[in-house]
Amino acid sequence: MSPVNKTKSKEISAEDANLSPIEQLLVLAETDMRAVDVIIRERMQSSVGMIPDLAEHLVGAGGKRLRPLLTIASAHMCDYQGTHHHKLAAAVEFIHSATLLHDDVVDVSAKRRGKKVANLIWGNAPSILVGDFLFARSFNLMVETGSLEALDILSTAASVIAEGEVQQLAALRDIEMSEETYLEVISAKTAALFAAAAEVSPVLAESPKRLRTAMRNYGRELGIAFQLVDDALDYGGFEVALGKSVGDDFREGKMTFPVIHAYQIAKDNKDEIGLAFWRRVIVDHEQRDIDLENAIALLGQTNALEATLDAARIHSDNAVKALRPFKTSPWKTALQELADYVVARVH
Amino acid sequence: MSPVNKTKSKEISAEDANLSPIEQLLVLAETDMRAVDVIIRERMQSSVGMIPDLAEHLVGAGGKRLRPLLTIASAHMCDYQGTHHHKLAAAVEFIHSATLLHDDVVDVSAKRRGKKVANLIWGNAPSILVGDFLFARSFNLMVETGSLEALDILSTAASVIAEGEVQQLAALRDIEMSEETYLEVISAKTAALFAAAAEVSPVLAESPKRLRTAMRNYGRELGIAFQLVDDALDYGGFEVALGKSVGDDFREGKMTFPVIHAYQIAKDNKDEIGLAFWRRVIVDHEQRDIDLENAIALLGQTNALEATLDAARIHSDNAVKALRPFKTSPWKTALQELADYVVARVH
Repeated sequence: MSPVNKTKSKEISAEDANLSPIEQLLVLAETDMRAVDVIIRERMQSSVGMIPDLAEHLVGAGGKRLRPLLTIASAHMCDYQGTHHHKLAAAVEFIHSATLLHDDVVDVSAKRRGKKVANLIWGNAPSILVGDFLFARSFNLMVETGSLEALDILSTAASVIAEGEVQQLAALRDIEMSEETYLEVISAKTAALFAAAAEVSPVLAESPKRLRTAMRNYGRELGIAFQLVDDALDYGGFEVALGKSVGDDFREGKMTFPVIHAYQIAKDNKDEIGLAFWRRVIVDHEQRDIDLENAIALLGQTNALEATLDAARIHSDNAVKALRPFKTSPWKTALQELADYVVARVH
Repeated sequence: MSPVNKTKSKEISAEDANLSPIEQLLVLAETDMRAVDVIIRERMQSSVGMIPDLAEHLVGAGGKRLRPLLTIASAHMCDYQGTHHHKLAAAVEFIHSATLLHDDVVDVSAKRRGKKVANLIWGNAPSILVGDFLFARSFNLMVETGSLEALDILSTAASVIAEGEVQQLAALRDIEMSEETYLEVISAKTAALFAAAAEVSPVLAESPKRLRTAMRNYGRELGIAFQLVDDALDYGGFEVALGKSVGDDFREGKMTFPVIHAYQIAKDNKDEIGLAFWRRVIVDHEQRDIDLENAIALLGQTNALEATLDAARIHSDNAVKALRPFKTSPWKTALQELADYVVARVH
């Protein structure tokens, strides 16, 4: 195939209506993402063999690399001309990977990206330590960009993520958790890294403050929408397609938006049977095999998944609006479509 | 008490022969360490209550704060005139605390600083997440100093520590581990942070390269000596005095210097009973209650603790020698005495 053909086919692919917006973004960002991948693979190496083995298990499993993709897209939105965004994108993915490794120890999930979670193969200890390693390496990468502001944004995000995770843990089995508190938790544990991933690029590009705020808000709102949809999918039964176990949140007694909604409706309707069910499975954490099905049925009766998607749509709309200050470009279009898709992917 | 008296009494204390070198250093560094303590307590706060509670359990338990003390002493050795060393010292202590929290999950220790380890009270999950929080906060502190070089040194140390921990984990129950490999492990898991803690201050002070190297070497050699003595103490039976459980390493099947030595002697002497013992308790990890006593007896017969202390003494001597480029000062004297004391404390 000649180079001309190759370029042509790439353009066609980018406009291919059969590609999801994430895939379209990945086509636009192909060269950048390849550079990011090289950095990721280079920096997860270590003379201590267990580290690249375990990192490869997680990183090699792929995932959409949505967060580094945000950093790359954001750099193009701001006409950044350098190459430091590749290192920051890799740093963002390392922070995310470290969080996943630690989450899998904290939670009881058996699968991640369709593969057995690392701690069930290697044990908890290596997952914790390799997470620490990737986290430390992410800071090495940031230091190399020389941007103290990017370091500030990402280290702050990292501490906010941990706070969100601890807050969620402390609220485990708290059936009275409010929607407001819940949105606080996911703003911290999920949206903070999306926001930071989008914000570091305008910082590199020395863009005006309003563009920086716009990209940050886009990331934040996208992250909230993303998490809400994830909550709905945990009760949605698409295990094979998504490579994620269904019912993980339920089995842990984790309060998520659908449960908060269903419990509130049960309260409003004085539905004693519904209230007793949620209290038993969440507060007392007494669950039988059939209870996940029962929970899904109750969520159906109370339109809890629809309510969750409605809430997600508000935030994805906010994300689209956040991009207004930017001029029209294929990147802007792709990011707008991504925000819509994050909610639409559920159907 | 008048201010004059107060100053006078501090001078006397510093020269009090009854104080250990660490205590003497703490007297010299009193004002600085108080400033460090304020930063530590300020930065471990969070609106998520479980974080300060758990951090307080660990940080409040005290510990000698040896690593931040190194940063402070090193700043004085280099005549640093600013205040950023307080933030870096707090950052060093946060990295250390994060490591301890994660170690306690990775290991099976029941006590830390004479108190029940945090994960046995709060569970593994908060220990992992609060460790992550403190680690992230340490980078916030570093960013505030504006020193990319200090960030580089400490983030590199953090990744090396994780590598050392994983290497130790991978070598768990590897009875054939060599002294050389073992020294590699402790250079990474323990000495890297001592070295970094000592090196960041000459960086802040913009000291000549040779002073920076000198302080780094001092920290590194002190750290190796410190860890070797710790290994000996794990078989030494000073639980109450040290606030540390005895036999932790043994029960985990961890290879440490004393065991490597005893096993080597058993090999040299073709002591089949000794060889069989070590293989059973370390490789097969089959241990009975009496086996710790048996191990201590075997270490005694092979002079393993003496050999460990001899090795430690070589490194503490190296630490003292590393300080040669510095002019005589109370700080230099205190650091020299500290290096001797790290080995002498065992008796």
